[in-house]
Amino acid sequence: MTVNRQWIYARKPNAEVGPANFDLREVETAPPAPGEVLVRTTLLSLDPASRAWMQGATYRSALEPGDVMAGWGLGEVVQSNSEKFAAGDLVSSEFGWQEYASLPAHRLTKHDKRHKPEHLLSVLGVTGLTAYFGMLDVGWPRPGETVLVSTAAGAVGSIAGQIAKLSGCRVVGTTRGDKCRWIVDELGFDAAVDYTQGDFERALKAACPNGIDVYFDNTGGEILAAALRRMNVYGRVACCGAVSQYNTASPAPGPFGVPGFLVTKRIRMEGFVVMDFYGRRAQAEAALARWLEDGRLKAPVDIVEGFENMPSALADMFAGKNRGKLMVRVG
Amino acid sequence: MTVNRQWIYARKPNAEVGPANFDLREVETAPPAPGEVLVRTTLLSLDPASRAWMQGATYRSALEPGDVMAGWGLGEVVQSNSEKFAAGDLVSSEFGWQEYASLPAHRLTKHDKRHKPEHLLSVLGVTGLTAYFGMLDVGWPRPGETVLVSTAAGAVGSIAGQIAKLSGCRVVGTTRGDKCRWIVDELGFDAAVDYTQGDFERALKAACPNGIDVYFDNTGGEILAAALRRMNVYGRVACCGAVSQYNTASPAPGPFGVPGFLVTKRIRMEGFVVMDFYGRRAQAEAALARWLEDGRLKAPVDIVEGFENMPSALADMFAGKNRGKLMVRVG
Repeated sequence: MTVNRQWIYARKPNAEVGPANFDLREVETAPPAPGEVLVRTTLLSLDPASRAWMQGATYRSALEPGDVMAGWGLGEVVQSNSEKFAAGDLVSSEFGWQEYASLPAHRLTKHDKRHKPEHLLSVLGVTGLTAYFGMLDVGWPRPGETVLVSTAAGAVGSIAGQIAKLSGCRVVGTTRGDKCRWIVDELGFDAAVDYTQGDFERALKAACPNGIDVYFDNTGGEILAAALRRMNVYGRVACCGAVSQYNTASPAPGPFGVPGFLVTKRIRMEGFVVMDFYGRRAQAEAALARWLEDGRLKAPVDIVEGFENMPSALADMFAGKNRGKLMVRVG
Repeated sequence: MTVNRQWIYARKPNAEVGPANFDLREVETAPPAPGEVLVRTTLLSLDPASRAWMQGATYRSALEPGDVMAGWGLGEVVQSNSEKFAAGDLVSSEFGWQEYASLPAHRLTKHDKRHKPEHLLSVLGVTGLTAYFGMLDVGWPRPGETVLVSTAAGAVGSIAGQIAKLSGCRVVGTTRGDKCRWIVDELGFDAAVDYTQGDFERALKAACPNGIDVYFDNTGGEILAAALRRMNVYGRVACCGAVSQYNTASPAPGPFGVPGFLVTKRIRMEGFVVMDFYGRRAQAEAALARWLEDGRLKAPVDIVEGFENMPSALADMFAGKNRGKLMVRVG
């Protein structure tokens, strides 16, 4: 038999999520049922939304203690009971945090092996598509506008900011510490604001002297509140996530100025979930792949080695340690 | 000489606005300057936004104590130094709270006398246009959807709700007391929820069993918060005003769930100001006039007699005493 190691979401976090919330379990790998495909996981994605799934129902039902921890991954087909897949195929899906997964064929996406595996799980995967559609279809940046991106060194923010640059905008990112310099020097942001240092509002104003036209919001909370104060008339807020409110037992109320600023400044705030745009997925993937090949888009990835490190990697992400897309190499 | 009575915005309110914040002044009516038109005010509009103008800059600069109180009105041309207007013309503009006003010709709109004067200041004026564009262009109701309108017995809400009915929607209004029955029996709303009684959230759920697809928000605050909890996926919030936050010295923070609910439910919240749509003003006025003539749209107005009652009428509006558009007949 083949042993399948699984990380079980065992205990709901009171505040910050970490290794204490997970148990490692070993089970026997079952052969795939008719119509199913057995996959060996090679890379697993770490995503801030994981913590929100523990808070309750979102765009998906809540995680319940005892479940295999949910998460997206890339893997190789080991055994297929579907004519659509064959052993050796490179596939992605929501495998969960486990070394082997059996899934119905319709839930798997087959990938072209010409791409780097880590890109399939980042810039050419959910992360890149989220940045692409959120920035271009929800934020709608126009040349010459000022675009603010929060968690700008993160998986989505790093791509979203670069797409705004490709759109001819002045692009400002919020992040912390050394990552401020990194998003400017490496990713081409025009300016960075450290949200942990000094007078954030003043620094934001200095970095956005002409106000903000588009805010790509990954954080909610105080950064959203400050951005709303600085938004221009007809500004757009693309609501992608609210990471400032995930890793806590007591999420804050909404920002001051909702709806007041929205009315007086005619601001549009719009939430989105990337799956809604999958009808145009091929178009976006082609654009992202072309920019990547042309060297116009950088795809930073932060790879942690070893399946056993999944829970600590998740905690590190909330501590802001990663640069670009964080993932774990399973085998 | 002709005496011109003016209400001066004399003292900034600490909380609730009322007669204590205004002084009545008598001045001599000056003849119009070259290019100007002298108008005798006949009807003056009362608007919740007046109170917001006292809080600070909005889509216009803040009111300053000592100013003639700002406000929209209808009047008759007394003397014209512009070839575009003649004595006896029916005109509207922002006259301020005064019996006579001299204004540059370009700031006046001439009206067809076939309409009732009170309709020109309500359903065929700023109020009706706000309801029209806010509901149809920002809220975008589709047949069969559920639309919630707050301050549904007010000037804008009463029209906005009827426009949603004309669009084939189930329409629910929030108001208080006897006005609940009135918006159902007289204006054709499908249901009303009294926001002052009992368990508002439960009553809202009962009135909107299929959730809310469009929320036309005139209030902000707790009603907005409850609506966000009840919104359906892909819901739209047309942010028209935030009357719950105007008549206070300490506006509340934004509602819980911003941006969280916006993301998970893909909600669009969009603020608007009616002037942005004036490029299509004629189209909207024609539609509103046609519905009015056909009897498909009711235009409730609440007329207080006497210029001296302007400040008390404003206070009464915030106490929720009016049904439909509140205005004062000046002479």
